[in-house]
Amino acid sequence: MNIRPKPAEPGRIRYTQVYKYILDRIHRGDWKAHDKLPSVRELAGELQLHRLTVFRAYGLLKEQGYIYVKEKSGYYVSGGRPYTDPAEPEDASNTRSNLTTGGAGGTTFNALARHGTGHLQNTLSEIHQIPAVYSFSQVLIDPNLLPNLFLSDHVKQVFDRYPKLLGTYSSVQGDEELRELLCADMQRKDKLQVSCDELLITTGGQQAIDLLAGVFLRPMDYVLVERPTYSSALDCFRQRGARLLPVEIHRDGYDLDLVEGYMKRHKPRMFYMNPTFHNPTGFIVPASQRKRLVELAERYGCLIVEDDAVHDVYFDAPPPPPLYSYDTEGWVVYLRTFSKYLAPGLRICAVAARAAVMAPLLTAKSLADNGTPLVNQKLFQHCFESERLQQHLEKLRTALQIRRDVMEQALAAGTGWQWYRPQGGLNLWVRLPEGLSSNQLLTEGVRRGLTFVPGTICDPLGEMDDRIRLSFSFKNEAQIREGVHLLVQLADELARGG
Amino acid sequence: MNIRPKPAEPGRIRYTQVYKYILDRIHRGDWKAHDKLPSVRELAGELQLHRLTVFRAYGLLKEQGYIYVKEKSGYYVSGGRPYTDPAEPEDASNTRSNLTTGGAGGTTFNALARHGTGHLQNTLSEIHQIPAVYSFSQVLIDPNLLPNLFLSDHVKQVFDRYPKLLGTYSSVQGDEELRELLCADMQRKDKLQVSCDELLITTGGQQAIDLLAGVFLRPMDYVLVERPTYSSALDCFRQRGARLLPVEIHRDGYDLDLVEGYMKRHKPRMFYMNPTFHNPTGFIVPASQRKRLVELAERYGCLIVEDDAVHDVYFDAPPPPPLYSYDTEGWVVYLRTFSKYLAPGLRICAVAARAAVMAPLLTAKSLADNGTPLVNQKLFQHCFESERLQQHLEKLRTALQIRRDVMEQALAAGTGWQWYRPQGGLNLWVRLPEGLSSNQLLTEGVRRGLTFVPGTICDPLGEMDDRIRLSFSFKNEAQIREGVHLLVQLADELARGG
Repeated sequence: MNIRPKPAEPGRIRYTQVYKYILDRIHRGDWKAHDKLPSVRELAGELQLHRLTVFRAYGLLKEQGYIYVKEKSGYYVSGGRPYTDPAEPEDASNTRSNLTTGGAGGTTFNALARHGTGHLQNTLSEIHQIPAVYSFSQVLIDPNLLPNLFLSDHVKQVFDRYPKLLGTYSSVQGDEELRELLCADMQRKDKLQVSCDELLITTGGQQAIDLLAGVFLRPMDYVLVERPTYSSALDCFRQRGARLLPVEIHRDGYDLDLVEGYMKRHKPRMFYMNPTFHNPTGFIVPASQRKRLVELAERYGCLIVEDDAVHDVYFDAPPPPPLYSYDTEGWVVYLRTFSKYLAPGLRICAVAARAAVMAPLLTAKSLADNGTPLVNQKLFQHCFESERLQQHLEKLRTALQIRRDVMEQALAAGTGWQWYRPQGGLNLWVRLPEGLSSNQLLTEGVRRGLTFVPGTICDPLGEMDDRIRLSFSFKNEAQIREGVHLLVQLADELARGG
Repeated sequence: MNIRPKPAEPGRIRYTQVYKYILDRIHRGDWKAHDKLPSVRELAGELQLHRLTVFRAYGLLKEQGYIYVKEKSGYYVSGGRPYTDPAEPEDASNTRSNLTTGGAGGTTFNALARHGTGHLQNTLSEIHQIPAVYSFSQVLIDPNLLPNLFLSDHVKQVFDRYPKLLGTYSSVQGDEELRELLCADMQRKDKLQVSCDELLITTGGQQAIDLLAGVFLRPMDYVLVERPTYSSALDCFRQRGARLLPVEIHRDGYDLDLVEGYMKRHKPRMFYMNPTFHNPTGFIVPASQRKRLVELAERYGCLIVEDDAVHDVYFDAPPPPPLYSYDTEGWVVYLRTFSKYLAPGLRICAVAARAAVMAPLLTAKSLADNGTPLVNQKLFQHCFESERLQQHLEKLRTALQIRRDVMEQALAAGTGWQWYRPQGGLNLWVRLPEGLSSNQLLTEGVRRGLTFVPGTICDPLGEMDDRIRLSFSFKNEAQIREGVHLLVQLADELARGG
């Protein structure tokens, strides 16, 4: 076994660190324009460093125009805009797409990669918080499609069985009975080789992504991401200062030569992917590519983060086996959201990873929240164990398929709307009639109580303003019809310049 | 209003960033000793940077001995140990205390501050995972002290009331009814000025600390911490590469001149404190100091993170008002753990913060997990609302006080043990008989089914090996007597060299 994925290690840094430290304090306003900075001697004393180290840091800051020297007086903070390296556009971060400015992003991935290094943003979450009658932004199952009475009754039995449940903590890794249950399920249904020790329970898939980004990414690291993809994952990677390398996803998967080229040239730390009923497109990466991708990950030392959020929501045939099933060397981490179609409020995700990835992940999880609350795990375990679940899942698939069909019919009433018919998942990825902007349409939509996800935030390049993601899982058939009717009407109005 | 706490902003970095990037890849093993590095032209092409930028980075790496040049061939990774700046001890990270090596830590805070920059560790969590009959390490209420039957019944009513609870997500900030309830409680009982918008619900206090560290700390930032303190908070700060400035806590609080001196000299970003029934000592920072600390925070722009985990576990009088009650300018964030004494398994913490702190915190929370599960919040809300809670709390205080007394009696049977009698909280902070090491004692203890927290991990300097933290909340009176008896016996054996 050659398990190499290791948590990012801190580099040994000297005056460059002091440089960054001073710059941070200037940005933060501790020292303002034309303020006198501490002398080299003072700062060296304060930081308990060699004076030469501080001197070098000041030298670099001066060279870059952040500070200046007054003779016989000392160092001062510059007033204007510091010197900008022409190769690195200063304003890249301003081109970051958001609700109001749309996706005027850079045209090369590198320009984009610099967007929001360390930037704290989550536009998708902001959209979800907009109250809307026709909410097509949430990839959430309509609670009316869940066996609520059954769940409530079941829950009560759980509390009878574990009367001290509200008083007990879980282990950091997650409840052992639950992990055994999920392992057995994945072994049986998906032929996955996974042991109880190789599973971590997280509070939803989002937490798993955030933990993995924290453990494995450092500023400047490259991350392969699909184009388009799940925007909150992009925000997690951006927050860590990573650089995004977009890989287009098509209905037959990726361009593997391109992927290999990127791996060879850029040594990305991670490939975040969503190969099964892909969010937002609904595409399925074919089995033949899955095997090959795992080989590439091994060869180039790139950790594949396989996000499998809607594995069981298929309409015709079950999806191909996860990439994780081909992994023998520990280069795939598998994120399987389990609670979404049964009891989404419990937020149970299982992360499968080999020991080298699991160990630092457990530490990160312990620092993040000491373990997912036991009550959520036990409630989920007992719902999941019940025979009723399988029946529910079948009904749910039918119900969702009908909603997909209703949404397609409603969209077909408009002119110039195009989409791919997904064989599973919860979304339609729709190309707007020519000339329409997803962000403009959303602005209008919000005024009329309608939300969806604009293409720009799904695109790591901030483009794709001609696409939208419409979820058909959260609203019922009548609401879907009315909402899509309204959407088509709004689009017509915009097209007429109304 | 002069609200200034702002999330740390990324510095604009150029060749220093490339320097760090190359160093990371060397550390990671992408390029091994004596491997040829890409040429300046190649790397500049790969990173889409100006060649001069890469050239400078290589220059710096060469100067520091990480790489060397072969004439007419190119750059190579060094084989030996790179040049070490004498002012910055290379091996500082090795002196970090842990279970096996004990606290041979550096003697200046600065040596320590460099420990584990970006290091992923949580020793406390590792101790908690050791199975033990006499577990005195967990600061958890014994589930037998909770009104379990009442809770179970109550929970069932909640599911009757909200039949779709398991199918519903919470907002990122937390359920509004719960926030209203907790606001009202804090206004009424603690005279806190806090509005519903100023509260965020997190999955326990640990998550709140981790989110705050992520939003406000960057490598090299100073953080004031108490000595001793809660070790998992230290681990969170270390993970972000922060430098720890320890402030001794005494039974009459801190040395405020020292605190002011640190603030003036080092401009710490944050003061993480636990002023009420302090963990591990049980001390209470007096009201007179609280007001003054808020003034200092305002004057020097240092965010106070006030962790109030056991506010309601007092034995005689309620504690003084939180520092948050004196804050008018937004320099205090208040972490109030609510679920600990009623339904700890639900993991409900309320974070009170003014708008400038709340905004980035909400984004971080959305990226971390999209919001604490609604089911935990609703269950807690209805348990907390019930009249029965107040009666339970009174009984609980009495029960815990008795356990404290039992533990003190049992310890008094040994020779040379010393401790402070806490007026609240869940721990005794005990000085061991002369010559004993907490880590040695723990190693022996674990073999005999007994755990506690060694002083070294509570001490930001990694010293205090002569202290231990014993929690009296998790085990019953008989177990406390037996366990402490065993502990005293083990100490005697160690003292006799047995």
